[in-house]
Amino acid sequence: MQPPAALSRHREPLEAHLRSLLDTQQPPALRRMLRYHMGWEDAHGAPAVQTGKRLRPMLCLLSCEALGGDPQAAVPVAAALELVHNFSLVHDDVQDRDRVRHGRDTVWALWGDAQAINAGDALLALAHHSLAKSGLPAETVVQCAGLLAERTLEMVGGQVMDIEFESRTDVSEEEYLAMVSRKTGALFDASLVLGALAAGASLTAVDAFGRCGRSLGIAFQVRDDALGVWGEERRTGKASGADIRRRKKSLPAVYAFARADGGQGAQLARIYSQDDVSDADVEWVLGLMDALGAQAYCATVAGNQRDAALRELQSAGLTPEGARELRETADFLLSRDY
Amino acid sequence: MQPPAALSRHREPLEAHLRSLLDTQQPPALRRMLRYHMGWEDAHGAPAVQTGKRLRPMLCLLSCEALGGDPQAAVPVAAALELVHNFSLVHDDVQDRDRVRHGRDTVWALWGDAQAINAGDALLALAHHSLAKSGLPAETVVQCAGLLAERTLEMVGGQVMDIEFESRTDVSEEEYLAMVSRKTGALFDASLVLGALAAGASLTAVDAFGRCGRSLGIAFQVRDDALGVWGEERRTGKASGADIRRRKKSLPAVYAFARADGGQGAQLARIYSQDDVSDADVEWVLGLMDALGAQAYCATVAGNQRDAALRELQSAGLTPEGARELRETADFLLSRDY
Repeated sequence: MQPPAALSRHREPLEAHLRSLLDTQQPPALRRMLRYHMGWEDAHGAPAVQTGKRLRPMLCLLSCEALGGDPQAAVPVAAALELVHNFSLVHDDVQDRDRVRHGRDTVWALWGDAQAINAGDALLALAHHSLAKSGLPAETVVQCAGLLAERTLEMVGGQVMDIEFESRTDVSEEEYLAMVSRKTGALFDASLVLGALAAGASLTAVDAFGRCGRSLGIAFQVRDDALGVWGEERRTGKASGADIRRRKKSLPAVYAFARADGGQGAQLARIYSQDDVSDADVEWVLGLMDALGAQAYCATVAGNQRDAALRELQSAGLTPEGARELRETADFLLSRDY
Repeated sequence: MQPPAALSRHREPLEAHLRSLLDTQQPPALRRMLRYHMGWEDAHGAPAVQTGKRLRPMLCLLSCEALGGDPQAAVPVAAALELVHNFSLVHDDVQDRDRVRHGRDTVWALWGDAQAINAGDALLALAHHSLAKSGLPAETVVQCAGLLAERTLEMVGGQVMDIEFESRTDVSEEEYLAMVSRKTGALFDASLVLGALAAGASLTAVDAFGRCGRSLGIAFQVRDDALGVWGEERRTGKASGADIRRRKKSLPAVYAFARADGGQGAQLARIYSQDDVSDADVEWVLGLMDALGAQAYCATVAGNQRDAALRELQSAGLTPEGARELRETADFLLSRDY
């Protein structure tokens, strides 16, 4: 499925704003890491175009428009969301020891852990710089900055939980969803809320948008979890079963652990505690997940979250065009194959 | 030398505010790391009192008062500075592989790199949360947040340079001071500026305070560098010559590299490229630094920065009491033996 056109409508001004933020006075070594990570340069500093989907800032700008706001004025706010997201990617890669993201070497794989920590820190500082210099009314900026800081804190808390879960085999689906609500849901929540705040929306609409974003984020993450197990390599850039090989406790694994019988559970626990997972182990886990209906379960969970998200929009006073675009975007988040 | 009384005048409300910020909803594992790092708990979660000097927030509150502002109202701003400082400490310890700080295990030494990265990230997010919820006029908050984000970015740039310098033996004193101006000077600059902004000071006074803080920060760091080589263990908690043993390219080392003759330079380069530095090597380097007058040089550099800092205050319209307290604080920063 192709992303809806609405998701690329504001790409150019967003990208230009992000570039201008990263063009400020910085030591060359820092500038190089940031420009590489954002996808504008290769590892040697030559121009490149390898950027991500910019999903969070686009959601922010769509929300702003859907509530009658001016998306141009909200670009610095949208940029702040993308910077927070990228700060978390750079640090997550260090923490998870992931050497490759979307077919490119990660920052720590190229420049080492210490400098990658710095690169992530710089992106978080830049996010608040972008907000403070946005030119929006000061009251709006303060609301946006407070909310973004809270949601960032929540996201970091989610990452703390995710790392704790790695050493456990008894994570319940409930615990898993609480973690995902923080780790992914919080920033989607912030994305829609900041768009609504920039549009000067009512408190009721802002709150509804926050809940909508939270559910969309959970749906997005559950779809991501499914792609990590059943995605096609030529679309996702990851081999099928990749998250099993990495022993990641994403929803399919949590579900399998919860539903497996005694013998299956012991075998699962053995596989997920090994340093190296063989092809045969991956096949066995895939077979078990199949038998337990894990893929259908993930689709149901994601679908329920999407439905909950869209219900929140019903009473939020959207333009018909805005409502349609947000619906299309939600559908894309759930059906995407990359 | 004892710290001047002014440096502890606002300790209680600051500490209470910091505690209230960290009491928000967080996963227990994150809360525990933050409370431990801030010095309120030991590694087992039992109450402790092992906090740092809280120098930056105290400078902020003194500046605010010296310009006729209300220090109570500025406490959340001061807290933000302490949180940014602590975010940088937690990440620096990971980057430098330092297992002990002020006689206590560092966060990564107790909970691992991945969780320590999260703890630092949370502290930076909390800093902006404290600003946004400060209750100061929105225009003031936006000015403070923009300045703090810029200075944080500068500080991270300084850390990038510091790490780059580790693999070089030809760092000039000029390059070293440019690095220190970022790594330490930027946050002292922000400390005085945020105090002045909270006091509603004129742009002229704010700028003068920023330059004053920058110079004070450099003086502070140079004194720190001297203590890292010539400090007494019972005061600093570090063995004499500790920074030589760690092959740290602080000012005494940069000075020695720059002034050593050919043979001495080769020997220095050999020692600073070893994995382990012997007692005899430390003695030899201390002897060389002595012969080259490194200690007197550091005192001169720090003294010049202190003088430059105090000159900035002359035309800034301070209360006489405020001017006296800032002078005493500057003297303390330079003569402290811990």
